[in-house]
Amino acid sequence: MSLNPQYEDIGKGFVQQYYAIFDDPANRANVVNFYSANDSFMTFEGHQIQGAPKILEKVQSLSFQKINRVITTVDSQPTFDGGVLINVLGRLQTDEDQPHAYIQTFVLKPVGGSFFVQHDIFRLSLHDV
Amino acid sequence: MSLNPQYEDIGKGFVQQYYAIFDDPANRANVVNFYSANDSFMTFEGHQIQGAPKILEKVQSLSFQKINRVITTVDSQPTFDGGVLINVLGRLQTDEDQPHAYIQTFVLKPVGGSFFVQHDIFRLSLHDV
Repeated sequence: MSLNPQYEDIGKGFVQQYYAIFDDPANRANVVNFYSANDSFMTFEGHQIQGAPKILEKVQSLSFQKINRVITTVDSQPTFDGGVLINVLGRLQTDEDQPHAYIQTFVLKPVGGSFFVQHDIFRLSLHDV
Repeated sequence: MSLNPQYEDIGKGFVQQYYAIFDDPANRANVVNFYSANDSFMTFEGHQIQGAPKILEKVQSLSFQKINRVITTVDSQPTFDGGVLINVLGRLQTDEDQPHAYIQTFVLKPVGGSFFVQHDIFRLSLHDV
């Protein structure tokens, strides 16, 4: 496969679609449908898991309900297998917590005319100044 | 190729090696050796370029000399072609500027027993609060 010239739109579209589901408490567990049963890695605040069942467990274990999210930047690059590497920089506030900057990286892998999330790395951007 | 079980050490080792070169003004231009002539993408503060010659141009155009850098976290995942996806969260201060949080994502691609940087996305983490 070759580079997908639509990588920019795919990246932005995916981010919008993914967070629309994730940020809705009633719908959050459905983000599992973006992942593969085995071939998806998630690293959430340094904790690494593999495969949709464990990713679902992780998502369901999150204790907050409400999310206020602001996307600051979305940087996408085409990968050489026809997928997309996406870097999101944003701010989020869960329930009544303080807002925090965060970063999330996704790698979308093409499969049958669509994509699944092969890699997902999430970190709150906290610093000891 | 399959997953490289050394991905964690490769990620940390690469980050150390890359920044040791980048952060030395006399040596900075040598980071070009981590990139491929054609098959490397760099997105620097939203500006996308491709290939080692253009990446070298970009690196040589940076106006600062001194860098103080603190690495906060390095999250690595093995990619399915034997490479490594690396997410770096840190703080840096160039010359006498204010320190800023930043994020940098690398994808290392295996080639002949070594790796080159296939993808590189850099962003300062600036927010309108």
